[in-house]
Amino acid sequence: RRRPVREVLFFPSPPSCTEELLAEAAGPGAAARSCPCPLPRADCSFRRLLRRLLSARRSLEICLFAFSSPQLGRAVQILHRRGVRVRVVTDAQYMGLRGSQIGLLRHAGIPVRHDQEEGYMHHKFAIVDRRMLITGSLNWTTQAIQNNRENVLVMEDAEYVKPFLDEFERIWEQYNPSNYRFI
Amino acid sequence: RRRPVREVLFFPSPPSCTEELLAEAAGPGAAARSCPCPLPRADCSFRRLLRRLLSARRSLEICLFAFSSPQLGRAVQILHRRGVRVRVVTDAQYMGLRGSQIGLLRHAGIPVRHDQEEGYMHHKFAIVDRRMLITGSLNWTTQAIQNNRENVLVMEDAEYVKPFLDEFERIWEQYNPSNYRFI
Repeated sequence: RRRPVREVLFFPSPPSCTEELLAEAAGPGAAARSCPCPLPRADCSFRRLLRRLLSARRSLEICLFAFSSPQLGRAVQILHRRGVRVRVVTDAQYMGLRGSQIGLLRHAGIPVRHDQEEGYMHHKFAIVDRRMLITGSLNWTTQAIQNNRENVLVMEDAEYVKPFLDEFERIWEQYNPSNYRFI
Repeated sequence: RRRPVREVLFFPSPPSCTEELLAEAAGPGAAARSCPCPLPRADCSFRRLLRRLLSARRSLEICLFAFSSPQLGRAVQILHRRGVRVRVVTDAQYMGLRGSQIGLLRHAGIPVRHDQEEGYMHHKFAIVDRRMLITGSLNWTTQAIQNNRENVLVMEDAEYVKPFLDEFERIWEQYNPSNYRFI
């Protein structure tokens, strides 16, 4: 067995061309043309985050206060098309804001649930293949990725992953629309 | 050597009376009178967070986007009075908002630095005695503690603590007022 992943990423991360990373992830069907844009391709926190996400083979749980990064939105859609079981939980007040990816994900057929509470659904985590936890202060927005001081932990320690998996399943069930009371 | 702490806390956490916890932490000089208020004293995520914080003996680095919880503010002041070396980094746009604890901490003599950038200083972490990292989605506000879905990791794994210590020292130096350019 390989050593568990234990990675700490800090942001801001510079703008980065991710066309080739995404085309490669989309599979052999996608043309691997090189992108003519002048953005750098050097290793950076954002590319590391994107690679971790694209490593999903079976399942991806996402629990995010704000999700508007077009690059991460495309990555999630690619995983969905590749047959990864994707589920998304988000905050009701933020999912309709300009630039939100949530509508696009739903349109692509990805199940999305949101809170029905006064407080915010303020988590910012994802779980890849029920084994790798990605969590921290970072909302998945280009503003946060490129401008804010942020942190993201990538961890495969079961003692940290298991409680987040349980939390996701609790929230997923609680936000099941068939449970809404509308009182 | 004892086993490293590895704890995951989820919020919201119910309102909780912390008078006795804080009086105990303030030392034998403080009267240990029992508080007459009706709030519960049962174990909860917020009390666990507070106890971890109050365990500091030598140093406490705090790096927070928003800090307005009066209970956590009092805890930090108690640690400062007990001789713990406290340093605080925060976000310039949020530190002046109503209910912010930052002014009170400065008034108590605790050094505070803030960003001079366009983006947000969006971290939400603290490091106790250079050994225990407390990090997650939670800002230290009563609103977030009692109403939001939030997570906090408490971890003593050096692989996670060390990068956050380095990040704090980087930010602390970068936000040194003597480095401001005012251009």
